[in-house]
Amino acid sequence: MSKPMGGIPPGFDADDGMLLIGGRRADALIAEAGDTPVFVYDAGLVAERIARFRACFSGVNLHYAVKANPYAPLLAQIAKHVDGLDVASAGEMHMAIAAGCEPSSISFAGPGKRDDELGAAIDAGVTLNLESEGEADRALAIGRARGRRPKLAIRVNPDFEIKGSGMRMGGGARPFGVDSQRVPALVRTLVEAEADFRGFHIFAGSQALSAEALIEAQAATIALAARLAGEAGTAPPMVNLGGGFGIPYVYGDHPLDVETVGAALQEVLAARPRILAASGFAIELGRWLVGEAGVYLTRIVDRKISFGKTFLVTDGGMHHQLAASGNFGQVVRRNFPAAIASRFGQAPDEEVSIVGCLCTPLDRLADDVMMTRADVGDVVAMFVAGAYGRSASPETFLGHPPARELLIGDM
Amino acid sequence: MSKPMGGIPPGFDADDGMLLIGGRRADALIAEAGDTPVFVYDAGLVAERIARFRACFSGVNLHYAVKANPYAPLLAQIAKHVDGLDVASAGEMHMAIAAGCEPSSISFAGPGKRDDELGAAIDAGVTLNLESEGEADRALAIGRARGRRPKLAIRVNPDFEIKGSGMRMGGGARPFGVDSQRVPALVRTLVEAEADFRGFHIFAGSQALSAEALIEAQAATIALAARLAGEAGTAPPMVNLGGGFGIPYVYGDHPLDVETVGAALQEVLAARPRILAASGFAIELGRWLVGEAGVYLTRIVDRKISFGKTFLVTDGGMHHQLAASGNFGQVVRRNFPAAIASRFGQAPDEEVSIVGCLCTPLDRLADDVMMTRADVGDVVAMFVAGAYGRSASPETFLGHPPARELLIGDM
Repeated sequence: MSKPMGGIPPGFDADDGMLLIGGRRADALIAEAGDTPVFVYDAGLVAERIARFRACFSGVNLHYAVKANPYAPLLAQIAKHVDGLDVASAGEMHMAIAAGCEPSSISFAGPGKRDDELGAAIDAGVTLNLESEGEADRALAIGRARGRRPKLAIRVNPDFEIKGSGMRMGGGARPFGVDSQRVPALVRTLVEAEADFRGFHIFAGSQALSAEALIEAQAATIALAARLAGEAGTAPPMVNLGGGFGIPYVYGDHPLDVETVGAALQEVLAARPRILAASGFAIELGRWLVGEAGVYLTRIVDRKISFGKTFLVTDGGMHHQLAASGNFGQVVRRNFPAAIASRFGQAPDEEVSIVGCLCTPLDRLADDVMMTRADVGDVVAMFVAGAYGRSASPETFLGHPPARELLIGDM
Repeated sequence: MSKPMGGIPPGFDADDGMLLIGGRRADALIAEAGDTPVFVYDAGLVAERIARFRACFSGVNLHYAVKANPYAPLLAQIAKHVDGLDVASAGEMHMAIAAGCEPSSISFAGPGKRDDELGAAIDAGVTLNLESEGEADRALAIGRARGRRPKLAIRVNPDFEIKGSGMRMGGGARPFGVDSQRVPALVRTLVEAEADFRGFHIFAGSQALSAEALIEAQAATIALAARLAGEAGTAPPMVNLGGGFGIPYVYGDHPLDVETVGAALQEVLAARPRILAASGFAIELGRWLVGEAGVYLTRIVDRKISFGKTFLVTDGGMHHQLAASGNFGQVVRRNFPAAIASRFGQAPDEEVSIVGCLCTPLDRLADDVMMTRADVGDVVAMFVAGAYGRSASPETFLGHPPARELLIGDM
């Protein structure tokens, strides 16, 4: 009995049996990159996402979460079309600056910022999303020692989460942010210390596919920001509403209805409490902007039968695309969308398992899926590989070459 | 209610509250490495393991599986004390040669070997463990094209597995090796093609802690090798019995009784079928040799309370030590052994969770464990970090610096 896969995202066609990415043939893209395995990112699909966001969320700033995909050419393109970059380390901060982003449009969150990271951000004029009172004390001390006024926002651990989100980021004891009831006191501390108070960062979850859950979380986020501002007696210049927009990966996942989310947010913002009247709002997206724009192409190097089961063995694997192997936070491994790129659009006619080249049973790309018949030399496409792919995988494991990356199209 | 951790392996003491690794203070080791996070590997503990193996498995060759830990200084030491290195990619093969290993003592297994990898191995005189008939055809053709006689062994997919092993490598449809009933025909093909037939590689599982299960699997492996040799009409020069020796990671794991395994194997070898009389035997170990000899040291950068729960936030995390986060093949995350290295041996007096610096809820090092009270600046030791640590983790995820590595002691 074959197992289902997630659906191939829209935007991919075929030319005479060859997958087209951004209108270009996969075999030509591999030749341009030099070899498989390669991640191809279609800037056109990212641009479509940005345009779709702009159409629904007028007046709300769009930030890109660099962690989703820090590939430099992609980051440089995205930086031109969003209102800010959100980073999670000094390393990402330097990537964001190198991509051409103004430091004043960068914010830096992350629960374990070292003193040298706080200092680098303060020197650069990047906003720090403070994760604790202890971190606030360190940032203020570092600012004083350097004679600089730090830009400080507070990351709030909300007392709710996005229902059904893939990863819970709020609604209980978390290593992220400051519990909401302690936030007003911390705002007062920052204001008294004459820091440049930048507002709140409230991130309640990620990988949510339910519009209703996101609408509820965004409304709760704005209500929480207003309540905290009121208790602190200080309006936040900016409220980062977090992100959490999910994308379909596996069978049964349905795309998020962002238009409905945007319409609801406009209503909530129009009716927002007076203390937030002058505040700006931002949504921080990573996966939703780039995830479906990436395809991982890997070549079949062996086709073999074991105990009656057919395996296609590829030159790629979990060292490049850990999430597809089911080892990136998943409890149960389920199949991401895959296809034979060099026979794209042909009817499935056999059940196969697609594995990577690593000498470990963990290295699975697709289990017991129906595919068109493929041979050694054919190319497998793993879709939804644009976010948390190469940069989130154990690249050096087993000593294979790194994956190549290629950005195509324009934004 | 606090959760249990695995036991700290033997060989670690304290000097005035500071963890000693190989007799040296953790703080001095961090100073020598330059900073945290750092993996420290104690060559003395690896040497003890090798000596213990030699004492129990007299007459059996010891191979090291490079994939467990390819850190070059460690590899160079190990290469001097084992009989061979087993590699899983051309990259690892080059590391093994650079470590001083004779190419004739290297064997190369892995289900997705590319033609350029087969060619590099044949050129170097490395033994290829063939994973399929298709790979055999490719290797023979490449050998002919280069005018070289390839050294070829056959990796057998056994029709059994090591019971209770952490990862199943046999006993059903697998991407590894050739199903045993097809092996005799493949031996004949290799012999007729005048390849240098090197024997069998039979790997039935890994991370086994039961001596009984290993004894049973090794006996079955030898019986299988004899049966295949008889059917093929060719004695194998070498039989690689695989490895599979496990180490304790989590609460309830007990160390493997290798002495019992060794004694049983000696009896089986003494009574082995006549066709294997002149064969050599090897056991291939990675994790068991190096896993408990490694400690990952990471510094506490924040101590925070959320909803009444205490979090120690460190400057390391899953980007260096993925397995400890529970995202390396585990279905349920369980706590690896951890301690406050800078207060080592002090009584536990509070329940904490230890997390990494990554801005993701996946980055957990220890959940709800009892620890002695620790503050910012204290150092956390994660034990059992010598195998599948740095090289098996998503190092670039979130743009933090790589972990340092330090080899201490002598072999």
